[in-house]
Amino acid sequence: MADVPETPLLDTVATPDDLRRLKPEQLRQLADELRQETISAVGTTGGHLGSGLGVVELTTAIHYVFDTPRDRLIFDVGHQCYPHKILTGRRDRIRTLRQGGGLSGFTKRSESEYDPFGAAHSSTSISAALGFAMANKMAGTPGKAIAVIGDGAMSAGMAYEAMNNAEAAGNRLVVILNDNDMSIAPPVGGLSAYLSRIVSSREFLSLRELMKRFARKLPRPFHSAARKTDEFARGMTMGGTLFEELGFYYVGPIDGHNLDHLIPVLENVRDAAEGPILVHVVTKKGKGYGPAEASADKYHGVQKFDVITGAQAKAPPGPPQYQNVFGEALANEADRDPRICAITAAMPSGTGVDKFAQRHPDRAFDVGIAEQHAVTFAAGLAAQGMRPFCAIYSTFLQRAYDQVVHDVAIQNLPVRFAIDRAGLVGADGATHAGSFDVTYLASLPNFVVMAAADEAELVHMVHTCVEHDSGPIAVRYPRGNGVGVPLPTTPERLEIGKGRVVREGKKVAILSLGTRLAEALKAAETLEARGLSTTVADLRFAKPLDEALIRRLLTTHEVAVTIEEGSVGGLGAHVLTMASDAGLTDAGLRIRTMRLPDRFQDQDKPELQYAEAGLDADAVVRTVLKALRWNEAASDVGAASA
Amino acid sequence: MADVPETPLLDTVATPDDLRRLKPEQLRQLADELRQETISAVGTTGGHLGSGLGVVELTTAIHYVFDTPRDRLIFDVGHQCYPHKILTGRRDRIRTLRQGGGLSGFTKRSESEYDPFGAAHSSTSISAALGFAMANKMAGTPGKAIAVIGDGAMSAGMAYEAMNNAEAAGNRLVVILNDNDMSIAPPVGGLSAYLSRIVSSREFLSLRELMKRFARKLPRPFHSAARKTDEFARGMTMGGTLFEELGFYYVGPIDGHNLDHLIPVLENVRDAAEGPILVHVVTKKGKGYGPAEASADKYHGVQKFDVITGAQAKAPPGPPQYQNVFGEALANEADRDPRICAITAAMPSGTGVDKFAQRHPDRAFDVGIAEQHAVTFAAGLAAQGMRPFCAIYSTFLQRAYDQVVHDVAIQNLPVRFAIDRAGLVGADGATHAGSFDVTYLASLPNFVVMAAADEAELVHMVHTCVEHDSGPIAVRYPRGNGVGVPLPTTPERLEIGKGRVVREGKKVAILSLGTRLAEALKAAETLEARGLSTTVADLRFAKPLDEALIRRLLTTHEVAVTIEEGSVGGLGAHVLTMASDAGLTDAGLRIRTMRLPDRFQDQDKPELQYAEAGLDADAVVRTVLKALRWNEAASDVGAASA
Repeated sequence: MADVPETPLLDTVATPDDLRRLKPEQLRQLADELRQETISAVGTTGGHLGSGLGVVELTTAIHYVFDTPRDRLIFDVGHQCYPHKILTGRRDRIRTLRQGGGLSGFTKRSESEYDPFGAAHSSTSISAALGFAMANKMAGTPGKAIAVIGDGAMSAGMAYEAMNNAEAAGNRLVVILNDNDMSIAPPVGGLSAYLSRIVSSREFLSLRELMKRFARKLPRPFHSAARKTDEFARGMTMGGTLFEELGFYYVGPIDGHNLDHLIPVLENVRDAAEGPILVHVVTKKGKGYGPAEASADKYHGVQKFDVITGAQAKAPPGPPQYQNVFGEALANEADRDPRICAITAAMPSGTGVDKFAQRHPDRAFDVGIAEQHAVTFAAGLAAQGMRPFCAIYSTFLQRAYDQVVHDVAIQNLPVRFAIDRAGLVGADGATHAGSFDVTYLASLPNFVVMAAADEAELVHMVHTCVEHDSGPIAVRYPRGNGVGVPLPTTPERLEIGKGRVVREGKKVAILSLGTRLAEALKAAETLEARGLSTTVADLRFAKPLDEALIRRLLTTHEVAVTIEEGSVGGLGAHVLTMASDAGLTDAGLRIRTMRLPDRFQDQDKPELQYAEAGLDADAVVRTVLKALRWNEAASDVGAASA
Repeated sequence: MADVPETPLLDTVATPDDLRRLKPEQLRQLADELRQETISAVGTTGGHLGSGLGVVELTTAIHYVFDTPRDRLIFDVGHQCYPHKILTGRRDRIRTLRQGGGLSGFTKRSESEYDPFGAAHSSTSISAALGFAMANKMAGTPGKAIAVIGDGAMSAGMAYEAMNNAEAAGNRLVVILNDNDMSIAPPVGGLSAYLSRIVSSREFLSLRELMKRFARKLPRPFHSAARKTDEFARGMTMGGTLFEELGFYYVGPIDGHNLDHLIPVLENVRDAAEGPILVHVVTKKGKGYGPAEASADKYHGVQKFDVITGAQAKAPPGPPQYQNVFGEALANEADRDPRICAITAAMPSGTGVDKFAQRHPDRAFDVGIAEQHAVTFAAGLAAQGMRPFCAIYSTFLQRAYDQVVHDVAIQNLPVRFAIDRAGLVGADGATHAGSFDVTYLASLPNFVVMAAADEAELVHMVHTCVEHDSGPIAVRYPRGNGVGVPLPTTPERLEIGKGRVVREGKKVAILSLGTRLAEALKAAETLEARGLSTTVADLRFAKPLDEALIRRLLTTHEVAVTIEEGSVGGLGAHVLTMASDAGLTDAGLRIRTMRLPDRFQDQDKPELQYAEAGLDADAVVRTVLKALRWNEAASDVGAASA
């Protein structure tokens, strides 16, 4: 906190209204102070650094030119919004970013009227902005909508769908393409090359000029660029771009750090009679902070760091991260099996697929932010005899749910899903929580759904996936570090639909799925200390259930509790359904299901999130005791005591 | 069946191997006979007619030129595959199309090795084909993959994601764009206009020639068209297309009914050293059958019809279809409320949004096959004060699941979801069944999930959606006709989370959600006749549950049965979870949940599908009786008899 910078001009700007009272020549100083404040804040809290630094000038210019919050500014993903938060009345809380009770690391409607649409997943901004623009158009009220979207986010089909529908909004819609050419991983595919080509193709200017002259002579306004040349003196270059084909007026590329370029172009765009307009702005991630500019990857998301040296606080040494255990395990499997391949949707490092790619580059595919394609591509690979692993975060797999159902489950194709970030995820909050995958996958015929209780289990489950050729199979595991168990040198193939009893007792049965197992064992000790002999089972499979084991546990213990890191409709619901199908409830069954609560939880430390969710050891103990006390008189009748 | 055509040449072709033994000059006759056979078959069975007729020559040419099934031919959507089925060993069963036990109306892996990848939902083919191509590339085995995709399907972001990743496949991937300019509804948005422009832009040829000459002088191969001019003598026109920008070699447009054009172009494409290649083929839906050509809309999907006159068998007069009840009800609401608007993803008639659009054209949006965009666009509209209704089939809403979670539920925005085709859907089979929506929606915090028991209930629920501004709300209803109850003139606002008792009894409680209510009432009469006094409740809400009502029914009847038109994890699971949370199972609770089975069901008449699923009145009776007999000795203890 010693390094809070001097920011005399920024100190006078509490809201964008204050900003708009400045003279244009003061904006450079303001942006510089805003940058220093952003660096200082993230140095204190950790978080996304590079993307925010890249849009300091752009954020300043947009608020200066447009009439926020009446004009609706929508940041795609939202992790670049820290400077925006500083400028929009949240500076006093900026050093609480991503902390429990603090500011969200993304835009969020409940935080500020300057956040008209929250985000965190990518590529939603143009659709949302189009909604705002069309609502204003229908109501006949003034107001534009401005979407700021990165080049990486443009690889998602959703952005294309939105652009393909944007024409009706006319000049009420402005899309600012923030092309920093350095998303989390290098942008993938044809679009990236295309953008690079535009930026680099100065030598084609003369050709374009010739085209424009030709176009002016043609009967229909095919090359609208010809008409627009006068409107946008600066930045207008190429008429026939992809964006023009989709109905946009294309303006750019322009330097996103040069306020003398940004302001007049944005003013032109604001005042243009026609639209929608796409402004292509080129920025540099980490701009203005040496360490971040030099190593964009390492400074995309950071720990607390020393502003002078750039040294990031080191995470305490500990067990390996699940993502890396997965990547290594899969690479090991692939050493033995040429059919194994791995697919990631723009998260090579987050999913551990980078580890796989180092050893098997020809069998690793980063398809960009394109989960729908990723899953059906994997289905095609499987149909042609490969053993594909789709490594996608739980929350992002939601993007490909129909592909999971229609292309994988219905066809019963052996696509393997490695579902990282299952359960609560800490600082990223509700938008990144992996809460629903067991519910939305275990309801699908043909699917096998596993959850790893620790990192050794994950290794076994990866191997089990490899060997499972008869249909789709998924393994889920959490964000963060394992529990420190030794990793198996020879992974086992688990029997499908069989759980394991980790600890045998007599009165209480805890049926755990996933990494709540550690808390379940802790709870068992507390219960044992109170004289309640406790069994703990790791069910391993949410589908198919280990019906024999579950039946035995339910019928030979006085109380049974299921626990999982997921929403209602998952393991607990499946156990209850099986029990009721089998008539086990008829004569009395003391059973409780512990699951995520029916609310979205804000960011906090994961252990605090789980405590708040009622999914820690204490909560298990409370649930068991409450269930046993509930109807004490009937407790001998309620279940067959062993 | 009297009109089976004479097809002497087609009779000699059992498989594509036979086809490939014909001389090129025989193909015209073969295509003509294939067309007549297709018309005759669909005249007998009903089904998709226009799209199959549009690709008779294309299908013939592809099988003639490529080495199917070693080369993998993947039809997008698959409803155009009837000629393909006739040519690939399934002609003897072609008059069982879409019938129970018969051929699927789509491509299907289990039917034939000539269907390497099944479909039914749109826009998956390029991703799948890329999977096949890359699997072959990795394995070093020969074989190409050919995706045939319509212009309408190209509006989905998934197709764009796939194209953006296609470059790595090289010449192993061929995409054939079947541009019939007449999807179910007119294609929407910029892409459609763009395609039209290509087709219509002969006047730009000279400009392009000039561009190519310039391009040849430039240092880098920006305009690859220049290099390809020699390779593809025919059809190659424009270098700078959207497809080229995404990494494809573009060939076309060519006449898709002219075999003399198709064969040599496809041979060139097959033998090309470079790729991937996109071949732009222009076809006419319904080609060669006068009534279908004249009225593409009416002959997209048809009833049985008379081949000579084209007269379609009329559906027997009956109650209105749910989709039209919805469209009219929403239009009526919109007469009173200028904030109401309606969004469809390329299904204006199927969802009834066409009825709304007739009266409120400025507030109806057809966004194309773009469900992801549709939902987030609606979220934007809601955030700006509109009252948007997203009308999407249950199965297609799976395409937008993340948008439902991330943009709607987390932000608690009042988007209204009108979920048509909920439950089993008859002839379209498993791919179109709306089985999972209650499971995947009722697990989401903030959501209200309703199901209409009949068409009058739907009218009330539409009104309830209108008035519900505090968060997302969904109403689901089935494909087909209502039950014939009078429609209310003044729709009521239902109390959120309150069910209704339709029939009061004492021993058996049936808790129904949705249109199984009629079967539940039928079952109640049978049970009553056996002396079992039966209550039937229409719960109306899957979320929030009517806990008071459910608690009363569970605790005052000897046996309770839930029934719903959905998968495990839905209503039944929520009722069980609630009951176990409340400790109702502790002392014994005789409860059964009736739901869709854990398998994908093939096409059949809906009533037969439901019987097979165990969800008709007979099944309810069986379930109740079995539950009561199960443990007769304990029956007096098991539940409190009233």
